[in-house]
Amino acid sequence: MTTSSEQLARIPDTHLPRIVIVGGGFGGIYLAQTLSGVNAQVVLIDKNNYYTFQPLLYQVATSGLESSSIVAPFRKFLGKQKNFYFRLTEVLQVLPEQGLVETSIGVIHYDYLVIATGASTNYYGMADIEKYAIPLKNLNDAIQLRNHILEKFEAALQAGNKEELNSLMDFVVVGGGPTGVEVAGALSELRSHVFPQDYKELDLFRMDIHLIEASPRLLNGMSDEAGKNALAYLQKMGVEVKLSTGVKSYDGNVVTLSTGEQIQTKTLVWGAGVKANPLKGINPNAILKNNRLKVNAFNQVEGYENIFAVGDVACVIGETTPNGHPMVAQPAIQQGQNLGENLKRLLKGNKNLKPFKYFDKGSMATIGRNKAVADIGNLKIGGFAAWVIWLFIHVLFLVGFKNKLFVLINWINSYFSYDKSNRLIIKR
Amino acid sequence: MTTSSEQLARIPDTHLPRIVIVGGGFGGIYLAQTLSGVNAQVVLIDKNNYYTFQPLLYQVATSGLESSSIVAPFRKFLGKQKNFYFRLTEVLQVLPEQGLVETSIGVIHYDYLVIATGASTNYYGMADIEKYAIPLKNLNDAIQLRNHILEKFEAALQAGNKEELNSLMDFVVVGGGPTGVEVAGALSELRSHVFPQDYKELDLFRMDIHLIEASPRLLNGMSDEAGKNALAYLQKMGVEVKLSTGVKSYDGNVVTLSTGEQIQTKTLVWGAGVKANPLKGINPNAILKNNRLKVNAFNQVEGYENIFAVGDVACVIGETTPNGHPMVAQPAIQQGQNLGENLKRLLKGNKNLKPFKYFDKGSMATIGRNKAVADIGNLKIGGFAAWVIWLFIHVLFLVGFKNKLFVLINWINSYFSYDKSNRLIIKR
Repeated sequence: MTTSSEQLARIPDTHLPRIVIVGGGFGGIYLAQTLSGVNAQVVLIDKNNYYTFQPLLYQVATSGLESSSIVAPFRKFLGKQKNFYFRLTEVLQVLPEQGLVETSIGVIHYDYLVIATGASTNYYGMADIEKYAIPLKNLNDAIQLRNHILEKFEAALQAGNKEELNSLMDFVVVGGGPTGVEVAGALSELRSHVFPQDYKELDLFRMDIHLIEASPRLLNGMSDEAGKNALAYLQKMGVEVKLSTGVKSYDGNVVTLSTGEQIQTKTLVWGAGVKANPLKGINPNAILKNNRLKVNAFNQVEGYENIFAVGDVACVIGETTPNGHPMVAQPAIQQGQNLGENLKRLLKGNKNLKPFKYFDKGSMATIGRNKAVADIGNLKIGGFAAWVIWLFIHVLFLVGFKNKLFVLINWINSYFSYDKSNRLIIKR
Repeated sequence: MTTSSEQLARIPDTHLPRIVIVGGGFGGIYLAQTLSGVNAQVVLIDKNNYYTFQPLLYQVATSGLESSSIVAPFRKFLGKQKNFYFRLTEVLQVLPEQGLVETSIGVIHYDYLVIATGASTNYYGMADIEKYAIPLKNLNDAIQLRNHILEKFEAALQAGNKEELNSLMDFVVVGGGPTGVEVAGALSELRSHVFPQDYKELDLFRMDIHLIEASPRLLNGMSDEAGKNALAYLQKMGVEVKLSTGVKSYDGNVVTLSTGEQIQTKTLVWGAGVKANPLKGINPNAILKNNRLKVNAFNQVEGYENIFAVGDVACVIGETTPNGHPMVAQPAIQQGQNLGENLKRLLKGNKNLKPFKYFDKGSMATIGRNKAVADIGNLKIGGFAAWVIWLFIHVLFLVGFKNKLFVLINWINSYFSYDKSNRLIIKR
């Protein structure tokens, strides 16, 4: 090593090949689990000490679930693997030629590096929106959105005039993907079932929920039918959906739309797009638009033999996937698992790797109680059936028995009581 | 009113007498519940929008329980009462002559004012300890202590020398009351059952837990036998208990004890005392040492007819209670209930009030699994029996069915798995 000047992070040398995984999202943890028991040291790096089940962040943000039920400490569910090591740190850059990652706790040598850093909110260069909008990509975002929504209602009780009252009680959600649709639907449920008791002094007819989508339809990743059903459900729930409409600016008080229309609101939820998080030090030629890393069918990053990428940050360009796979959970999970099998082969000296093949299990989004949409193969399902499937799948994929049980109890409780019981403003 | 210059907080005028309760701890919420359905407007003011079950804060701090299970939003469990109003704000001062409280959202008129502001950590004027020690009086304290403990262990993995390692892995808990005893016991359980898997790289024999108590015994509020049992349990669990020992100073790295001994630690948990939180504007003659308010047997603050105090902040001086009642849950609950009944009489014009009589249901503290102490009347119970009683009582007094259920599931899960599953570092 030529980095004697750098501090070495203290990770025990087990005299085994070291696989460093950067990022413990879907891709990272399914990979780590697949590597259980292999003859290698597995080091997971993440800036949090817990895994977050992102698909349910919106329920934390809208008081439906407590934050602890959708997260799991890495050390708890992966620490049982004897070859597993975790480090709470951030990667500053990769030094591919030296086989090192530089982190905030020192440099770490790797034999195989897996970039599973996922994606973060994309504001498309709009600084005002980045400053004032609320994103929903991690647990802190969700807790802050929850605090924000509830604080606006507490403030509404003291509003001095109708204009102020409207800006506090109106919500603009940008992006007609699953996040936007789910947040808008959940806000509508708060309006119907929770806030009338909590804020009996307020006239809840004043609470407007706007969902803004730049394209002519909702849920672009799904079937036309799913998009139409979602639109119908939302409209029935009183959400004002504006399609083919973009957002031009937001100053914390007024949103200006591409149509020129202006909406007064203290709350703009930004679910309009994501961009991948590649690592510094990776050959720029491997970085595609939207920051994704160009990987081959074995998830090898272009130009490297021992650097891989999985999940949102990876773009597996194939004949049927000119733009890679959708940036959602299933491709990440399947890539993590496939890469795990391939790393097992590589560790045994077998260079006959298995190319990644995406098995599309379908996609779904929920709008509210008894209302969801699901595309499963050629089957387009809506309403109650889709909602039950959605619930079942989401409980199934949560990490840990306690989380599954607690989420299930929350949902059963909410279903019968129409309540969302976690309406807590927890500030530091 | 002579306060036209002040902004009036917007609370609907129901043309009924208004009872303003400041503080939603045990005293405040039992009072508010007792006032359900009375012919008056009940306004609860708190700086949080949720009630905190303080006796279990230590379990949040030591990863045993998720924060959401020991709190309950006021609007959720009290909002069903038609005459109940909540305002999220802080009281700046009372203006008794005008019958007003000044808050951060404006002034609020009261016909009856109840001060239920509880107590906060007492550092006895030691500025260094206030700066560096971690208290445990509210939910934020608990979350920050949890973050802190886990961060010290993450940092210990990268410690450069033994001295640094020791200071990260050693814990000093000050105060041999229930909080100190419970935190020390829970830390010992983390050392025995959780950290060996989580931090397999660390030698846990290095983790020292010190409990420092200024008096010659533990659990001063309980029987001699309880104190002796707690000491024996803690020593068996490897906690180094130092009695008759005070803390002189702490600079964030080194604690200096009254004996001259010094302990290197990055963590000093301060559970050595509390002082009451009276409100500004109350006649200073009514404020006793330790900041408690002198109240008569009807919980009327000395010098006022329509200002009352309940709970930790109230000192009911009687023949058998020259120093008031212990600053714990039961006196607060019972005072809240008694005052509720008395306010009902006053609202009906009946001035024949019922004096407060404390019914001592006993006291208890838990040290670890199967280990607790309880004094119930003349019965001194220890070990498994006390522990089961402790669990049962604490579940019973939690607010809300879901909280009871979730805490119970956590405890059953922990009992069989020896796990504490909420070891999350959630920073903002």
